[in-house]
Amino acid sequence: VTLEDAVRLDAADPLAFARERFRLPECVIYFDGNSLGAMPAATPAALAGTAERQWSDDLIASWNKHGWIDWPTRIAAKLAPIVGADPSELLIADSTSVCLFKLLAAATKARLGRGTIISQKRNFPTDLYVAQGLADMLGLRVKAVEPDEVEGAIDADTAVVTLTHVDYRSAAFYDMRAVTDAARATGALVVWDLSHSAGAIELDLGGSGAELAIGCGYKYLNGGPGAPAFLYVARHLQEELQSPLQGWMGHAEPFAFVDDYRPADGILKFLTGTPSILALAALEAGLDTFEGIPMRDLAAKSRSLSQLFVEDVEARCGDEVRLASPRDPAQRGSHVVFAHPEGYSVMQALIARGVIGDFRAPDLMRFGFAPLYNTHAEMLRAAEILADILSSREWDQPRFHARAKVT
Amino acid sequence: VTLEDAVRLDAADPLAFARERFRLPECVIYFDGNSLGAMPAATPAALAGTAERQWSDDLIASWNKHGWIDWPTRIAAKLAPIVGADPSELLIADSTSVCLFKLLAAATKARLGRGTIISQKRNFPTDLYVAQGLADMLGLRVKAVEPDEVEGAIDADTAVVTLTHVDYRSAAFYDMRAVTDAARATGALVVWDLSHSAGAIELDLGGSGAELAIGCGYKYLNGGPGAPAFLYVARHLQEELQSPLQGWMGHAEPFAFVDDYRPADGILKFLTGTPSILALAALEAGLDTFEGIPMRDLAAKSRSLSQLFVEDVEARCGDEVRLASPRDPAQRGSHVVFAHPEGYSVMQALIARGVIGDFRAPDLMRFGFAPLYNTHAEMLRAAEILADILSSREWDQPRFHARAKVT
Repeated sequence: VTLEDAVRLDAADPLAFARERFRLPECVIYFDGNSLGAMPAATPAALAGTAERQWSDDLIASWNKHGWIDWPTRIAAKLAPIVGADPSELLIADSTSVCLFKLLAAATKARLGRGTIISQKRNFPTDLYVAQGLADMLGLRVKAVEPDEVEGAIDADTAVVTLTHVDYRSAAFYDMRAVTDAARATGALVVWDLSHSAGAIELDLGGSGAELAIGCGYKYLNGGPGAPAFLYVARHLQEELQSPLQGWMGHAEPFAFVDDYRPADGILKFLTGTPSILALAALEAGLDTFEGIPMRDLAAKSRSLSQLFVEDVEARCGDEVRLASPRDPAQRGSHVVFAHPEGYSVMQALIARGVIGDFRAPDLMRFGFAPLYNTHAEMLRAAEILADILSSREWDQPRFHARAKVT
Repeated sequence: VTLEDAVRLDAADPLAFARERFRLPECVIYFDGNSLGAMPAATPAALAGTAERQWSDDLIASWNKHGWIDWPTRIAAKLAPIVGADPSELLIADSTSVCLFKLLAAATKARLGRGTIISQKRNFPTDLYVAQGLADMLGLRVKAVEPDEVEGAIDADTAVVTLTHVDYRSAAFYDMRAVTDAARATGALVVWDLSHSAGAIELDLGGSGAELAIGCGYKYLNGGPGAPAFLYVARHLQEELQSPLQGWMGHAEPFAFVDDYRPADGILKFLTGTPSILALAALEAGLDTFEGIPMRDLAAKSRSLSQLFVEDVEARCGDEVRLASPRDPAQRGSHVVFAHPEGYSVMQALIARGVIGDFRAPDLMRFGFAPLYNTHAEMLRAAEILADILSSREWDQPRFHARAKVT
């Protein structure tokens, strides 16, 4: 594949127009949208408008006048086509970790008497920490197993299974339907973490029978650093489940100011405290970057990009790197991982050359592809720079070995 | 007191300069900074800079380059002089409700075997809901008593007492030292909700022996709608207490990505998920409106404002309204409440005339005074408009009787 071929692919890309929806720095190839999505071009105006024409001008009246009170559901509705759910099953709230705590606690309460939370070894760390914290509170145990042992580990003592759908390291993903069916067969619930799935691959929460899910707003959804998270509760569970994080926003009558909690109907009961309206405005601008884009097309472009990158890296770098993601693009999310014994330093050298990915211990270089703004030409250019860095040992400099506080 | 007197008081006000730190709409007298503080003039630039010169330009590298990782503590340090605590005892995180859940859960765990959470009847609703949710999870009970019964209700079964320091309705406040001492005498902990205190009155958490507290960022602290909250854990409890909401930001080594949770040292262990950096930027602009302002001066101005308002309203309106706050300004926070049987409609009529307070059932009109931007002249003008509305029965119109969704 030559650069001309890649440019032709980009010219024929039906999603090429979407790159204009972002403000990307020049001379940078950004492959870390799986950690922090790029800024949408509309975000500054969304923030300024919310601050200057709503908060500043209309002050407290904005809650009614600008409908702030409904933003957690109004904005969640924009997520519905991205994850394949009904708008009434989605809510924007809190952080990913707090949303996970809510749904795990609700699930374990609904399955009282069962003593086990099943998860995966090397799951995204915060997911394990949240499960451990809850288990510690309630006297449950967390059993973390290998990915291929999950279905077999589910038994009559399993209250809930919690898994990250697309693995943040390898990009391999679970069969959502198979795990859900295995859990339902024993009466257990499953909470999916969609942080590395939503906005990256085609999802069909409704069609796959998924019952509970949470996810991150600041990765592929482009909601800004630390954006509010989302949670999903299938309609048929909304009556039964009860969030333990009972706050006034989830009360049936939040403005009655009564002493006793009475949960709101439907998904609203999973709200807790007052959400940051400014953060919601930015998240909305992020979700709007998906407007009018079929997730099938987005997923197809993701596979086309990542496959080109994998092939070109392997052609140029040979045995120096090892693909640590599934080889079949239909079996992975929208990022690709290559292992190299000096992966940390190699990644720093790449960043210094304007190719921004990230590193995960012990030896994994992650390259995340955002089909809304990455191009085929970038795949070739990045592979070329990587090959150059490896062949010249450019990475072997003190400045590339020094560990930053945040990696 | 004439308008000329009030103007003279404003001319002599050592805090008068602070009004320039806010962008307030013209022709509005804003007395609802106790619900949503006005927008600081610096906020739009803070948001734009964070979005456009940090997130957009530096992308993921911003976590190191702009020190985002330290913002929850860096910004909390600006709160330290406002609440009288050491910076190492404060953290910005989550919502007020979630912070309260964390500290109540940490406190009940540290007092395992004790079965009661004591609170106040008619406490701020979310505080009771959070306590009830936690109690339900852990098999504890919430005992809500009258304010003057709190100290007597604390006994050997009390795990934790949770009170709103300044009552959101009456503005009366608890003696922080007396309640803390009563609790400590039995081994119980106290979690103070400072939502209607922080930035409104002089606080000395350290000096009063307070051990745990949380509070709101969007009222007197001017952090913007739904701003992140804060929590306070006295140094001597930081080792013993453990947050049940264990997330990766509170891990000792968040970037080691290990499977097992190990809490960070000190206050950092109370972090959970990734905070919204945009919301933190706005909160910082809010806290910066207090820069260089001694809380003693601020509290003195608060008393001067509210006393003028009370006296002028009573002089003009006579028996038509009833003061529902303590008469002694030294016994109340920075808002004042008058009861009127048609309080809802009277408040709507006031708002239509540009005097923005709020209403709390059943009959309470709240007027919150922000010493950073309210003036003595506004007190007289608002009292005059209120008297006019009452004497003319201007409030008795269908448009003022219709209830809005958010009140």
